[in-house]
Amino acid sequence: MFFKRIYDEGLAQASYLIACASTGEAVVVDPTRDIDIYLDEAREQGFEIVGALETHIHADFLSGARELAKSVGGKLYVSGETVSGWKYKGLDDFDTVHLKDGDGFALGNVRFEAVHTPGHTPEHLSYLVTDGAQADEPMMVLTGDFVFVGDLGRPDLLETAAGQSGTAKKGGKQLFGALRDKFVGLSHEVLVWPGHGAGSACGKALGSIPASSVGYETKHNWWKKYIDDNDQSGFVEELLADQPETPSYFRKMKELNRDGMTFLGGLPTPAKLLPDKFRALRREDAHLLDLRDKEAFAAKHVPGALNFSKLEELSTHAGWVLPYDDRPLVLIGRADQMEEATRRLVRIGMDNIVGYVTHIEGAVDDSELGCYPIVDVEHAHKMWESDDATVLDVRAQSEWEEGHIPGAIHVHYGKIRDNLDEIPRDQKLVVHCASGIRANLAISQLRAEGYEHVANMPAGFDGWKKAGYRTEES
Amino acid sequence: MFFKRIYDEGLAQASYLIACASTGEAVVVDPTRDIDIYLDEAREQGFEIVGALETHIHADFLSGARELAKSVGGKLYVSGETVSGWKYKGLDDFDTVHLKDGDGFALGNVRFEAVHTPGHTPEHLSYLVTDGAQADEPMMVLTGDFVFVGDLGRPDLLETAAGQSGTAKKGGKQLFGALRDKFVGLSHEVLVWPGHGAGSACGKALGSIPASSVGYETKHNWWKKYIDDNDQSGFVEELLADQPETPSYFRKMKELNRDGMTFLGGLPTPAKLLPDKFRALRREDAHLLDLRDKEAFAAKHVPGALNFSKLEELSTHAGWVLPYDDRPLVLIGRADQMEEATRRLVRIGMDNIVGYVTHIEGAVDDSELGCYPIVDVEHAHKMWESDDATVLDVRAQSEWEEGHIPGAIHVHYGKIRDNLDEIPRDQKLVVHCASGIRANLAISQLRAEGYEHVANMPAGFDGWKKAGYRTEES
Amino acid sequence: MFFKRIYDEGLAQASYLIACASTGEAVVVDPTRDIDIYLDEAREQGFEIVGALETHIHADFLSGARELAKSVGGKLYVSGETVSGWKYKGLDDFDTVHLKDGDGFALGNVRFEAVHTPGHTPEHLSYLVTDGAQADEPMMVLTGDFVFVGDLGRPDLLETAAGQSGTAKKGGKQLFGALRDKFVGLSHEVLVWPGHGAGSACGKALGSIPASSVGYETKHNWWKKYIDDNDQSGFVEELLADQPETPSYFRKMKELNRDGMTFLGGLPTPAKLLPDKFRALRREDAHLLDLRDKEAFAAKHVPGALNFSKLEELSTHAGWVLPYDDRPLVLIGRADQMEEATRRLVRIGMDNIVGYVTHIEGAVDDSELGCYPIVDVEHAHKMWESDDATVLDVRAQSEWEEGHIPGAIHVHYGKIRDNLDEIPRDQKLVVHCASGIRANLAISQLRAEGYEHVANMPAGFDGWKKAGYRTEES
Amino acid sequence: MFFKRIYDEGLAQASYLIACASTGEAVVVDPTRDIDIYLDEAREQGFEIVGALETHIHADFLSGARELAKSVGGKLYVSGETVSGWKYKGLDDFDTVHLKDGDGFALGNVRFEAVHTPGHTPEHLSYLVTDGAQADEPMMVLTGDFVFVGDLGRPDLLETAAGQSGTAKKGGKQLFGALRDKFVGLSHEVLVWPGHGAGSACGKALGSIPASSVGYETKHNWWKKYIDDNDQSGFVEELLADQPETPSYFRKMKELNRDGMTFLGGLPTPAKLLPDKFRALRREDAHLLDLRDKEAFAAKHVPGALNFSKLEELSTHAGWVLPYDDRPLVLIGRADQMEEATRRLVRIGMDNIVGYVTHIEGAVDDSELGCYPIVDVEHAHKMWESDDATVLDVRAQSEWEEGHIPGAIHVHYGKIRDNLDEIPRDQKLVVHCASGIRANLAISQLRAEGYEHVANMPAGFDGWKKAGYRTEES
Repeated sequence: MFFKRIYDEGLAQASYLIACASTGEAVVVDPTRDIDIYLDEAREQGFEIVGALETHIHADFLSGARELAKSVGGKLYVSGETVSGWKYKGLDDFDTVHLKDGDGFALGNVRFEAVHTPGHTPEHLSYLVTDGAQADEPMMVLTGDFVFVGDLGRPDLLETAAGQSGTAKKGGKQLFGALRDKFVGLSHEVLVWPGHGAGSACGKALGSIPASSVGYETKHNWWKKYIDDNDQSGFVEELLADQPETPSYFRKMKELNRDGMTFLGGLPTPAKLLPDKFRALRREDAHLLDLRDKEAFAAKHVPGALNFSKLEELSTHAGWVLPYDDRPLVLIGRADQMEEATRRLVRIGMDNIVGYVTHIEGAVDDSELGCYPIVDVEHAHKMWESDDATVLDVRAQSEWEEGHIPGAIHVHYGKIRDNLDEIPRDQKLVVHCASGIRANLAISQLRAEGYEHVANMPAGFDGWKKAGYRTEES
Repeated sequence: MFFKRIYDEGLAQASYLIACASTGEAVVVDPTRDIDIYLDEAREQGFEIVGALETHIHADFLSGARELAKSVGGKLYVSGETVSGWKYKGLDDFDTVHLKDGDGFALGNVRFEAVHTPGHTPEHLSYLVTDGAQADEPMMVLTGDFVFVGDLGRPDLLETAAGQSGTAKKGGKQLFGALRDKFVGLSHEVLVWPGHGAGSACGKALGSIPASSVGYETKHNWWKKYIDDNDQSGFVEELLADQPETPSYFRKMKELNRDGMTFLGGLPTPAKLLPDKFRALRREDAHLLDLRDKEAFAAKHVPGALNFSKLEELSTHAGWVLPYDDRPLVLIGRADQMEEATRRLVRIGMDNIVGYVTHIEGAVDDSELGCYPIVDVEHAHKMWESDDATVLDVRAQSEWEEGHIPGAIHVHYGKIRDNLDEIPRDQKLVVHCASGIRANLAISQLRAEGYEHVANMPAGFDGWKKAGYRTEES
Repeated sequence: MFFKRIYDEGLAQASYLIACASTGEAVVVDPTRDIDIYLDEAREQGFEIVGALETHIHADFLSGARELAKSVGGKLYVSGETVSGWKYKGLDDFDTVHLKDGDGFALGNVRFEAVHTPGHTPEHLSYLVTDGAQADEPMMVLTGDFVFVGDLGRPDLLETAAGQSGTAKKGGKQLFGALRDKFVGLSHEVLVWPGHGAGSACGKALGSIPASSVGYETKHNWWKKYIDDNDQSGFVEELLADQPETPSYFRKMKELNRDGMTFLGGLPTPAKLLPDKFRALRREDAHLLDLRDKEAFAAKHVPGALNFSKLEELSTHAGWVLPYDDRPLVLIGRADQMEEATRRLVRIGMDNIVGYVTHIEGAVDDSELGCYPIVDVEHAHKMWESDDATVLDVRAQSEWEEGHIPGAIHVHYGKIRDNLDEIPRDQKLVVHCASGIRANLAISQLRAEGYEHVANMPAGFDGWKKAGYRTEES
Repeated sequence: MFFKRIYDEGLAQASYLIACASTGEAVVVDPTRDIDIYLDEAREQGFEIVGALETHIHADFLSGARELAKSVGGKLYVSGETVSGWKYKGLDDFDTVHLKDGDGFALGNVRFEAVHTPGHTPEHLSYLVTDGAQADEPMMVLTGDFVFVGDLGRPDLLETAAGQSGTAKKGGKQLFGALRDKFVGLSHEVLVWPGHGAGSACGKALGSIPASSVGYETKHNWWKKYIDDNDQSGFVEELLADQPETPSYFRKMKELNRDGMTFLGGLPTPAKLLPDKFRALRREDAHLLDLRDKEAFAAKHVPGALNFSKLEELSTHAGWVLPYDDRPLVLIGRADQMEEATRRLVRIGMDNIVGYVTHIEGAVDDSELGCYPIVDVEHAHKMWESDDATVLDVRAQSEWEEGHIPGAIHVHYGKIRDNLDEIPRDQKLVVHCASGIRANLAISQLRAEGYEHVANMPAGFDGWKKAGYRTEES
């Protein structure tokens, strides 16, 4: 058996290429949208991909399983468990295999068995994988968003993202049952390869370790005591507490992954735009995504552009702040950044990338270009002390709760536009996050909304704290 | 004055970026289609392009003048000389200035004066350029395809490319008049910056020197004696003799440059295709352009693909062998070759580039892949000697006439498909050019037409000659 | 805890970056020589590397542990188990911690405990890793070359590589003891992260799976029955049988890893050589490593150059065929291949890379360039049938034994120069491996030794078999 | 004849590749140090370089002529005119041809004739080039630093750069003679291809046009009237007036170009340094050249590092501010900038480039990193108005004279360290140039000297002027 984890650090998402070394047949589990990466890997290894597997209907990225199955002329394996109305649609044109609990299939020597493990989503499957060349018992279980290393998949996304009220608790209860009935009884040596790692918004405390084992998770995970005590409600309560903010793009992902998405046909590459076309796109109200460094953006930027200065986080950051509308996407950055940017956008279904410019000089009139100051903590502290400015903290709720600047306003960087009434227009604003990246993204939204006196304090809360200035917790 | 020649080695074509250093205003003369190169250059130099100039309706590349003028919101300067029916169309939507002989305009200190110099084309203009900051007399004349370094623009393209019979001689006479009346009288120190260099099919003996002077060309060019003797017919006879083959794409270029072309909006970049899409495109009869080395192509290639192994010559080679039809263009090659390939294709109006694959393994079944031998001169000579194979020479007429292999068939690599009846199907073929590149392009056409036993002899005619084998001239 | 496996596909070697997420302290286990990859990764993750760990004295790559420890001003953790004379030298200048069985240390919440697991080497340590933030019991054991997924580290390298006779059996017995006393008793849920994957020459049947668990390996590995039966000699016999050829560079690696190696200071980059320098280097008898495709090499190559057409395998291929001498290394290939080539060479201690040329034209006289034919199986079969050529099979012993061409000579591609007397000079040779890559490497050695009539049959044994020609096993 | 100008925009320096198309022999005139560019070009064109020509002993870049001649085994053509003690040394080991006025040689059909044209330097030669395939009279004259387009080579460098007092006037007189006796008498149609374009410090008003003609320069250059009036002293006076500052590295260039320089053997590439090595180099007092954007540098930089934020100008900027000492050079920037940086440094003989780091995080402790503010003109004006800061203008003398901020101190960015006593340490400084690039280079020098309160006003003098603030001329 050949087994390779392919990991997207930005989405903290794992897909798996698994093959029978004898027959050369391979499948991919939970592929992202830009499926060329699996095809290239398979070609280099000498394998032929014959199928794509889904563990569940994903919320955090757009699945490439349908297109992969179609592209290779292979099978599409998805959950056939439909306890609720939430189920896959539009699969008639595919060579689809709907798997129910206990169903299986083989790939040469390698055998897959579906285990219904609802909770994160009602239809969720895990896959037991047996390497028949080596043993008759499973070597691993691919748990998707069921059991993570050190955590569990959150059951509240259907409610918080897809608006199905009441499903969070219901999912929590299902998860309890799945753990008790389908997981803790597995042999302890079975490896656990989950769908996410640390940083994913599909859980709250995921470990930065790619794999675990049934025994280790059973013995050492926080939920073990509830199973032992058969305390379902205690379990659900702890599970649902303190889940991170649900990114706004999750709703769209769930819908598209359920109903079907456009096929890419290939990895698109944005065209290098001419000024006339760039101007026309601005008139059409294109979204402008500026990928340059935060300092360069602050010094000079196109009005209305949003600053995504950490390319690796583009999926999450764009997913939080950009709506799914018909407006074209235009990038600003170096030519050598475009491939990665494209991958990260199509992975969340933002496909309408029409082009890019490398320089803003020449693309717009110099007189149009905007700028704002970057301030150090001393300067910010002085403004804060003298009430010369309001501090706006754009970090996550959990970061805010651990400590923040007294008197600061807190609005998550992804919720700026929905909370403008909380952010005063008639005062100077000093915006911060932890490193200046999310602050710049927040500032660029504020400026697009007409806010004028906004500065970034990139040293962030840590810098403030290290300087010995007053802080508070909540 | 700022003056920069921007040269395409493949098309042997020169465009010029000229600016007034005081005002920062710039124009481009005879821009190619991918006008981002001028905009980038102007931005780096700190200039603003305010206009685009055409010397004439080009036959060998698609002009970027219209899109450049539109893109910068500037003027489009073209010939208003319409002695024949052959004139620009579709310019109403542009801020067009039709220039007639003697008309001029200024760009800060820099003055341009149009000189009607028909011959290569009836409407052809040259431009006298005066750097007012330095002198009141012209420093240079931009001669387009009128006077080259060491040669003259050929007057027969309207006839050979655009099918206007009788225009070759007429053009020759006009050229005689233009030289006599508009050129030899210019001050000898005036520099001549022409539109082409060595290798262009717009003339027969162009020098590999970027510039000359009126005095030098007048004194030392082959045509001087005819002017001195006022021998128009002798001039026309020598001028028309031995002009190179007219590439088949010239007709299309002339039409589009006259009537108007699609605007790019930006430099397109082909998508990295998925196998399914690649297969679909093959079913749609896409043109497959394989950019790999000739050895790699011979060893393994997709049936029907044509091998363009010299990227620099892609414009000319594709222009010779690909029709302008609706079939999509698909490239095979490394990702880092795609930008250059795209530029070279759009420069001749082949815009329908839908994507590329980096590897043919995985893109088609191994069993489908074709191959053919590469042979050395000894082997080829043995086959030739024993009548075991027919030699096919695919070089230009002029190369053939200087020397070739006795008994060889001669068909220009760009005319293979129109002359299949001259090329036997029932014999082994040994194909050669000078270096194996054009031979591979010819072979790939033959194989696409079902020829089976075809080998490449990359050592070429020179290798044969050096080996001491028999040759003949014609 | 943060845990990341960093894998070299060419060497099939895994190193591990492990950090405490709270304190940000990190260590690297079994780093390769080009330690910038760990430093870059740590910087991106926000960690500070404070130490380097070795599981044992490696035979297949040059360790970067010493330089990493020195470079970060951190500790160097190595085995202090010295049951034989084979032990680390030259560590006085380092902040060295010699670990013995049961010794441990902590990295914030993360605890490491050394377990002496001799066999592959006498001093070999495994590391039990406990994530104190999660549990008080170990989550994983880093087994180095002790237990692989599906296999065990071979105990014969000290004998076959380092010439210490009698150590193979002794090592086998130690391995038996280590499995019995140190491994099978571990909790079954403990994950096993070994030092190698499939393709490594440090074992014979390694799985293509990054991790396993103690329970899985204990239950399903081939050696379980011997432990159950306490059959040490049966174990040793099966263990030692059919181990793959020991690459010739292993001896050097073991010595340098034991005694100390030069520090790189940084990743060197070869200079782009001028022709004069290239000629001078040829006169100095530099090793010429040609990285071009096999077809391009066959068509034209510098005499004496060896063809390494699969960059990913450069460590192993160069390790087999190049001696460790004072001759400089000169590369031939594209500029964009040089970084990877350099990494792969320094990983096995071939540091003397003085430069590269991108083209052989201009670097040597055309008349000097060599070439040889590439033949298809039909052609090869015809030559074989008519005794017109001898077939030389350069694959590994195991491949040969599974099936080969009757009458073929078998010499491993890495042992060509030691077995020239088995390879006839007076006959045509058709050389093959599986895909033509190793065959080209063999041919380039033969040509460097003066063999003239050598052809490559890249379709390989599989191509021959698929064509239905006669084969035999042994 | 083949003729190609190869131009370095940073040094504004032209070299020329000239070949006989029939024989394929080529020479290079005034090559820069990184001679691979000529060798690559020649290979692509199918030519063989057989010699290198020097017009004179250069002051502004290190010549590659010696190494090129040696590398190709060709001839080295230099001036044999030795009117003063200033002459080439160390040429015995070369196949040197010392050319005197009137001497010539041929390259197939192409003939070169040396013309002694002293002034810029005493030994200076120009070359008349005749394309024998076309004519018996010269087509062009390569004037080196004798006649530029619109200007003349300055005669004062031996005095200002090499310290030979009295030579400026003497050179001016020689130049007068050379113009009168060797230039104005040439046929007017002869093209002039000089050694420099606009921006070079080898003259004061060079045009941005690559070529001119004898007739045009004779008629329209500023010096014509002095020749007509035979007014040598008036000529010398105007010639010497207002020459730009002589870059400090010129002295070294002249010495090395006269006496001989180290050979590169190839284009070196800096190694990617490990932190330990980087720290060791800092302890050895390495020069740190930070190539990042000015905003990024201001936000965070390694103490002591100098900011060269315009890569294209690296030769000139480094030549002004870095001494020629034994201290190693270490770069900070992206990997893809290193090739260009290396070229620009070796072109002025700064070869001791030992390596680079891509990030300063990890390379030094965060606590060590420095920063300073970037201010807009409003802010700067406020500080200036309230005497809260001193303005430091680091532009060239000519820019200063055209207009500056009242009360500003003026010190050229290249003379900061020699004029620290003019720059107050006890006040806030607002530093500006035209765009912030030279200001950052000045600030980084000041900070390296311990200045603390320094800000950059990147909008520069133009921004100040546009804002309507008070200015003055001098």
